[in-house]
Amino acid sequence: MSTNAYRSLCELARERALISTTASVLGWDQETRLPPAALDYRASQLAWLSGKAHELATSSSWLNALEEAESDGCNDPVIAANLREFRHHFDRASKLPTELVERDTRTSSRGKAAWVEARGKSDFSIFAPALENLLEIARQKAELWGYEGEPYDALLEEYERGSSTAEVAALFDAFREPVIDIAQEAVENSKATPPDLLDGNYPVEDQKILNREIAESLGFDFEAGRIDTVTHPFCTHLGPNDTRLTTRYDEGDFLSSLFGVMHEAGHGLYDQGLSKDQHGLPSGQAVSLGIHESQSRLWENHVGRARPFWEKWLPRAAEIFPGLRRLSLDEFLLGVNRAKYSCIRVEADEATYDLHILLRFSIERRLLNRELEIGDVPGAWNDEFEALFGFRPPDEANGCLQDIHWSMGGLGYFSTYSIGNLNSAQLYNTATGERDVASACSRADYLPLLKWMQDKVHSRGSTLLPQELMESATGKRTDPGAYLTHLRTRFCQNG
Amino acid sequence: MSTNAYRSLCELARERALISTTASVLGWDQETRLPPAALDYRASQLAWLSGKAHELATSSSWLNALEEAESDGCNDPVIAANLREFRHHFDRASKLPTELVERDTRTSSRGKAAWVEARGKSDFSIFAPALENLLEIARQKAELWGYEGEPYDALLEEYERGSSTAEVAALFDAFREPVIDIAQEAVENSKATPPDLLDGNYPVEDQKILNREIAESLGFDFEAGRIDTVTHPFCTHLGPNDTRLTTRYDEGDFLSSLFGVMHEAGHGLYDQGLSKDQHGLPSGQAVSLGIHESQSRLWENHVGRARPFWEKWLPRAAEIFPGLRRLSLDEFLLGVNRAKYSCIRVEADEATYDLHILLRFSIERRLLNRELEIGDVPGAWNDEFEALFGFRPPDEANGCLQDIHWSMGGLGYFSTYSIGNLNSAQLYNTATGERDVASACSRADYLPLLKWMQDKVHSRGSTLLPQELMESATGKRTDPGAYLTHLRTRFCQNG
Repeated sequence: MSTNAYRSLCELARERALISTTASVLGWDQETRLPPAALDYRASQLAWLSGKAHELATSSSWLNALEEAESDGCNDPVIAANLREFRHHFDRASKLPTELVERDTRTSSRGKAAWVEARGKSDFSIFAPALENLLEIARQKAELWGYEGEPYDALLEEYERGSSTAEVAALFDAFREPVIDIAQEAVENSKATPPDLLDGNYPVEDQKILNREIAESLGFDFEAGRIDTVTHPFCTHLGPNDTRLTTRYDEGDFLSSLFGVMHEAGHGLYDQGLSKDQHGLPSGQAVSLGIHESQSRLWENHVGRARPFWEKWLPRAAEIFPGLRRLSLDEFLLGVNRAKYSCIRVEADEATYDLHILLRFSIERRLLNRELEIGDVPGAWNDEFEALFGFRPPDEANGCLQDIHWSMGGLGYFSTYSIGNLNSAQLYNTATGERDVASACSRADYLPLLKWMQDKVHSRGSTLLPQELMESATGKRTDPGAYLTHLRTRFCQNG
Repeated sequence: MSTNAYRSLCELARERALISTTASVLGWDQETRLPPAALDYRASQLAWLSGKAHELATSSSWLNALEEAESDGCNDPVIAANLREFRHHFDRASKLPTELVERDTRTSSRGKAAWVEARGKSDFSIFAPALENLLEIARQKAELWGYEGEPYDALLEEYERGSSTAEVAALFDAFREPVIDIAQEAVENSKATPPDLLDGNYPVEDQKILNREIAESLGFDFEAGRIDTVTHPFCTHLGPNDTRLTTRYDEGDFLSSLFGVMHEAGHGLYDQGLSKDQHGLPSGQAVSLGIHESQSRLWENHVGRARPFWEKWLPRAAEIFPGLRRLSLDEFLLGVNRAKYSCIRVEADEATYDLHILLRFSIERRLLNRELEIGDVPGAWNDEFEALFGFRPPDEANGCLQDIHWSMGGLGYFSTYSIGNLNSAQLYNTATGERDVASACSRADYLPLLKWMQDKVHSRGSTLLPQELMESATGKRTDPGAYLTHLRTRFCQNG
C-alpha cells in the first residue's frame, strides 16, 4: 500500500521525532535536575536541537518526498491522514526562518529566570521586558503563519488543530454565565463544610505509596514511565516507552498531590495508549491539547472525585494514613468536593477552575491584538478577576504572575484547558452510556473505561482532527452540555 | 591574533560540543532515570547524536577551516595547541564511517542489558555474544585508526593521548612486583584491625549531609553541579556549569559513599576547573583519563584517607553519627586504612586496587590480540586473579562479570586507572613540596592544593599532551616512584 516516497517521508518524520524527544529529555532535565548556573548553556543546546529539527522538517528532501507521496496518492485512511498532517506541518514550518525558531527556543528557555524573580518579589515590572520579547516572537510567528481573524488564531492552531478563536470565544460565551453561577452556588453550598475537614499529617513517603498504587491501578505502566518531584508538575513523553509524570507534595494535604498524579497520569495514559509502531508519525501522535486535557481531567475529576472511587480507595488510604479513619465516606467526599474561590489557578477546585481560564483567554487575546499594553496587564488582570470572582487578588504574585506558561513562550493555549474540561465530560458521558463501562466504573473498575478511551481516542493518534475525533467518539462536536450537567450534579443542590 | 578560519573552526567545535554534551545528558538520564522499556529508543537517540557529531567533525567545512587555519599559522601557544588537537581528532574521526560510529553507540548503549542479566545469573555465556560484538567493533576501529604495535595502542590513544601499550606495559612491569609485595604486607598488617571496627548504622539522609558538606569544603560548586544516587557511581560533565556526581549508599558503612563522593568530586573539581571561555575547544577540555583519575584519587586517597583530614572531620562526623564517638582518631584511621583482598575492584582498598588493574590490562590485551578466545575469559580471569591475589573468585559475578565497562564498549581504558594512581602521587608530592600547600594541608585546608591543581592541571585543558603536562607540573614523566613511596608509608611497617 505504501510507496517508496511515503516510506522515505516516514523515515524523515521518525528522525525528526528523535530530535524532538531528545529536546524533551533536556526539557525534563531542566525542570527536574538542572543546576541553576547551567540554564544558559541548556538554552543553547535546546536552540541547536530546535534548529536541526526545523531544518529537517523544511528540507528539500522532506518536500520532495512529500510531493512525490502526494502524487502517488493513497486509499489507506491512515496514510492519507498522515499525508494531510505532513503537508500541514510542512507548510507551517516552512513559513518560519530557522533563526526565529532557534531564538524562540532560546528565549523561551531563558524566560523562566525573570519570571521566577518577578514572582518571588511580586513585581510584574521585572518580568515585563521578558514577556514583551516573548510576545513579540509570538506575534512574529502569527504574522508569518497568517490567520483569518486575529493573531490568536495562528497560535491556537499549533495546539488545537482546526479550531479558531471565534469558535472558542463562542463556546466560552455560551458557558461563561452558567459557570459563574455554578461556581457561586458551589462555593455557597460548601460553606457548611469545615475547611480543615481533611487536614492532617501525611508524610511524603506514604503519599508516594498511595499515588503509585492508584496510578498503577488506573493502568499506568511503570516499566515505561516514572513519577518525579518538581515545583511545577507536568507530564512529558520522551519516546514510545518513556512517559514521565511529575508532582509535588504538601504534608498537610495528600489530595493535592494525589489528584495531581491522577491528572498527569491521565496525560500519561493517553501517551502510553498511542501506537508505538506509529511513533514519530501523525498517526502515533496526540492530536491536540484540548483532547490531551480531556484525558487528564477525566481521571482526575470524573473518576477521582466520584463516590465509587473512594468507596474502594478510602479504606486503603486510611490504612496508610490512620488519621483518615475518623471520617465517614460522606464526610470525606464533602471534603474532596468542597468548593471555594482562590486566586491561584493550579489550586482551584473543579467548580471554579474555568473562571481562571476565561480570564487568561481574554488577557492573551487583548495582548496579542495590542488592545492591552504590557504595563497594564496587572490592572487589567485584577479588574477581570474581580468581575468573575467578586474580589481582587492581594498582589501580583497571586495575580498575573502566578503561571509559568507565558515565561516559557506558551501563548495561545490556556483556552485548551477549558476545552479539555468540556471534552472530558462529553467523552465520559458517552463512554458510560455503554452499560459495561458504567457498571465497571460503579465498582471502581476503570479498565473498561481506559479500554474505551484507548479505542476511541488514544489509538487514533492524529488521524482525525480534534473535532472530527469528538464527532467520531461522541457523535457531536465539543459543546458545554455534558460538562454543565456534570458540574450541576456535583455542586448544585438541585443539580 | 586569531584568524577568521580559526574562529570558524572554533564555532564548529562549539557546535560539536553542544551535540556531545546533549548526548551526555541522555547518558546521565539513562544511568539515573530511564524506565527499563525505553532503553532501545534511547539507544536510537544516542546513535543519531553520535552520527551528527561525527558528520560535523568530518565535514568539508571543518576540513576547509582547519586547512586554512593551519596555513595561516599562529604564534599563540593556545591556538597552536588547539590546531594540533583539531588536526589529530579530524584525522582520526575521518577514518571511521558514520555507520560504524552510530552502530558503536547503539551497541554500547544496548550492551548493558545482557551484562546485567549475565551478572545477575553469574553466567558469562549470556554476556559473551554481546561482548563479541563489542570487541569486533573495537577491533574494527583499531584497524581503521591504525597502530604501530598492537590494537590496544589505537584504543588507548582515545583515552591517553600520546601514550602506547608498550609504555604502559613497561610502567606496569616496573611496579607489578612491588605492588604485589606491598599489598601482601598491608593485608598482613591489617589483620590486627577488627574488620567490624567502623560498622554501625548510618542513615542515608545523614550520609547525604556529610557528603555534601565535605564536597563543598573541597570547593565543589553546587550552583554548577549536583549529587545523585545510582547503582554504578560516576561523574559526568554536561556543560560549562553542569557537573554531576553520583554515588550509592550502604547504611552499614558511611565511608564507602563518602570516599566515592570524594573520588567523583575530584573528577568534578577538574571539570569545574576547566576554562569556561574555552568550553568546546581542546584548551577547555580534560586532557586524558589518566590525568582525570589523578584528580579523583588525589582527593579520595591523598586527602581523604590521611590523618589531617580526619583530625578536622571526625568530630563533625561524630556529631552526625553519634556511634563514632566510641572511636579515637587512631582507631578510626586504622579502620579507614584497613587493607584486605577482595574480588570486587570497586570495593578494593588503596593497597590492593592496582592488582585489579594489572589483571584487566592483561585480559584486554590478550582479547584484542586474539590470544584469548571469548569463551576462555572466565578461566583466564580466575588464573590471573589467583597469581595476583593468591585465591580464586567464587563465581563469575565476582570475577570477569563484575565491571560494567566492557558492556558499554569501554575497551582500552582500564590501564588509565593505575596511571591515574601514579600521577596522583606524583602531583600531590610536587604540590606539597611547596611549603604553603603542605602547611595548609596539614591543617586540613585544601584550597591551596586545589589552587595548585587548577593552575598546573585544570586550567591547561588539553593544551599539553598528558606526559607534557606531567613534565610541566612535576618536572618528569609519569613514574612509579612517588606512588610506591606513598603506599609504603601508608601501609608498611618500615615504609
